[in-house]
Amino acid sequence: MNSKERYQILFNKINQYNSGEKGITRIAYSKEEQSCTYNFMRMCKAEGLHIRMDQCGNVIARRGGSIKGLPPVIMGSHLDTVYQGGKYDGVVGVTAALEVMKRLNEKGIKTDHPIEIISFACEESARFGVSTIGSKAMAGLFDKEKYRFLKDRDGIPMDKALSLCALDFNSIDQASRVNEKIKAFFELHVEQGPVLINKEKKVGIVTGIAAPVRLIIKISGTASHSGSTPMNMRKDAFLGASEIALALEKVAIKEQHYGTVATVGVVDIHSGAMNVVPGEVEIKVDIRSTSLSSRQRVLDHLYQTIQTIRRNRKLKIMSNEISVEEPVLLSTEINDVIQSICERKNLPYNFMPSGAGHDAMNMRKLCPTGLIFVPSVDGLSHHPDEYTELDDILIGIDLLEETILHFAKNNTKLA
Amino acid sequence: MNSKERYQILFNKINQYNSGEKGITRIAYSKEEQSCTYNFMRMCKAEGLHIRMDQCGNVIARRGGSIKGLPPVIMGSHLDTVYQGGKYDGVVGVTAALEVMKRLNEKGIKTDHPIEIISFACEESARFGVSTIGSKAMAGLFDKEKYRFLKDRDGIPMDKALSLCALDFNSIDQASRVNEKIKAFFELHVEQGPVLINKEKKVGIVTGIAAPVRLIIKISGTASHSGSTPMNMRKDAFLGASEIALALEKVAIKEQHYGTVATVGVVDIHSGAMNVVPGEVEIKVDIRSTSLSSRQRVLDHLYQTIQTIRRNRKLKIMSNEISVEEPVLLSTEINDVIQSICERKNLPYNFMPSGAGHDAMNMRKLCPTGLIFVPSVDGLSHHPDEYTELDDILIGIDLLEETILHFAKNNTKLA
Repeated sequence: MNSKERYQILFNKINQYNSGEKGITRIAYSKEEQSCTYNFMRMCKAEGLHIRMDQCGNVIARRGGSIKGLPPVIMGSHLDTVYQGGKYDGVVGVTAALEVMKRLNEKGIKTDHPIEIISFACEESARFGVSTIGSKAMAGLFDKEKYRFLKDRDGIPMDKALSLCALDFNSIDQASRVNEKIKAFFELHVEQGPVLINKEKKVGIVTGIAAPVRLIIKISGTASHSGSTPMNMRKDAFLGASEIALALEKVAIKEQHYGTVATVGVVDIHSGAMNVVPGEVEIKVDIRSTSLSSRQRVLDHLYQTIQTIRRNRKLKIMSNEISVEEPVLLSTEINDVIQSICERKNLPYNFMPSGAGHDAMNMRKLCPTGLIFVPSVDGLSHHPDEYTELDDILIGIDLLEETILHFAKNNTKLA
Repeated sequence: MNSKERYQILFNKINQYNSGEKGITRIAYSKEEQSCTYNFMRMCKAEGLHIRMDQCGNVIARRGGSIKGLPPVIMGSHLDTVYQGGKYDGVVGVTAALEVMKRLNEKGIKTDHPIEIISFACEESARFGVSTIGSKAMAGLFDKEKYRFLKDRDGIPMDKALSLCALDFNSIDQASRVNEKIKAFFELHVEQGPVLINKEKKVGIVTGIAAPVRLIIKISGTASHSGSTPMNMRKDAFLGASEIALALEKVAIKEQHYGTVATVGVVDIHSGAMNVVPGEVEIKVDIRSTSLSSRQRVLDHLYQTIQTIRRNRKLKIMSNEISVEEPVLLSTEINDVIQSICERKNLPYNFMPSGAGHDAMNMRKLCPTGLIFVPSVDGLSHHPDEYTELDDILIGIDLLEETILHFAKNNTKLA
């Protein structure tokens, strides 16, 4: 059996854990996700790895190094999915890491540094509205008092969900590795966007992870009868919302070369009806960039637009920044190495920002970190039709293997 | 007790029938609405009127004329409300009609023609999605096979709802008065819009009733990750919807002097989420005018806009006209009389279209019809805060009384 067949079987094994009818539903800390995780642990054990699960549910599978006392080189991603998600998001990174281990074992390669796989718990925000829970816990970024009472859509709070998996929410601090030395972390992930496919590149070398500013904007006009309110006597809140959305698009297009994006993804007309002029509308806005100054320009323009609309349409508009996260820059030292491997192997690559968040952004608090993308067909993500060519995944695995081997040598220093 | 006090008591009596906590909820064919209707019948009987309820639940209360065989002059409106509606919509017209009868009785006035009050059943579309059910039945416009299976929000079909009120859906054709001669119909109603208040007029003389074209427009782009989809690779369905809404506003403002209005009242982003570029959006559009050609110009412009958006944004857009109704022009002969009464009484009046539908538009199929508006404070309608000054209602009642007396004379011919 060649590596391709072997990997395909591994990939399929993971995706048989699914509670959904459409696509894959493997929600964090659910029965399916836990079974999947325990099965993954058994497969790691079969490769002779030393396995443990930390207090947050992260799985750590370690292959020893030949020089005693050196810090580990780590690769990983996550096995949980959104509701009705796809087979690739997260799974590719975890299964690729195990395939790399299998190859090293097969070839009898010994490395100076230990090598670890981490399968992170609860990367998706689908269950509790907060993402990358497991890597947050590992990086000492877990806000216990804030997260304890977060509830899933069935009303189950996070501490209860963990205890149903025999995990102890109160000891979650013990999952932190902030006092431990780690040489480097690598995550292989599907792009979740259309850039690599459109540019016909096989590898995305991620320079930074854009962090969102998220806003809720409430627009208040006057609900009135759609038949009996003349156009010049209306205060239509939805028309204000429409102007905001189009203005956001315009300024984000201007800032496009900074990888900046802006989206109105949720629009709610309060008591919307066909025969009522919208009186109250709430929209949710997501603005991302790896450039803080570009993101700020979009935000400034948004606030100017709101002022203009307030004045011209006599609407009340309240905006509230519900989260403001800092963009993360990844290691240029690591990216230089990945680039040189791509060039040697003749792989068409593309330096690019990640618009989506990843466990890598938390791991970067612990050690130099690299994030590698493989192409997503049609850019589809969080969708049953999410798809990446098997051959493209294998290119990613080759690259991950070489990168890991490079950094698992004692003579490759990292700042 | 003067007329004002007497009317206030009558008005309050009607509005004690209410199943809502906020505003008035007196849904057609509900327990509250039926109790209200039966109480109204008792009050009519106390005035010596001959009362009957037809097969659709319309109440007809008749005061005989002194010349045998003359057709009746009718006034009326409705007692049902929307969910969480106000105290005035419909109620004003029915109670005003009874107050007019009381005045005639008090003054011992005999009229040549009989005079009737009609309290129409199920004027609001709140229960079954179809409005003016009672007047449709009376005007022979009731589509029995289409309406039979319409269900309310509890799943109760219309025929069942009627039978629970001891009405027989299958005999509803007997409510038709198409073979009967009727001299004229008059409805007094609150404006449900801000025109009279803004222009400081006391009376609206309605020239025509605008009928809506209603459309459902489905806009399909590609749902994608809000972080990882660059601005120039998006097919954002909501931005297409925003452009449609703003274009509709613009063209309707141009057509404003025809009383034309256009509204996007419902917007639904399919699986909308903060981190997803909207892939599919459905909007509901309502366009009204008393001028068919003006309405058509708005519709033409809408379709042109859709073409442009399809091309520029590479979106799929499907539009579906779910209802196309004909505007109704009311009797100029009647309006001339109402105008001359207003001038004699020194009442500031305004000729205007009605953007909202009314029972008057169906009654016009049976006889010359007049529709009189009194001012709605802030133009609020279908809302707990709907309000009309008592003194303004009394002005409307005075006008209705004089108008009825005018046409109840045998020597006032109508074409």
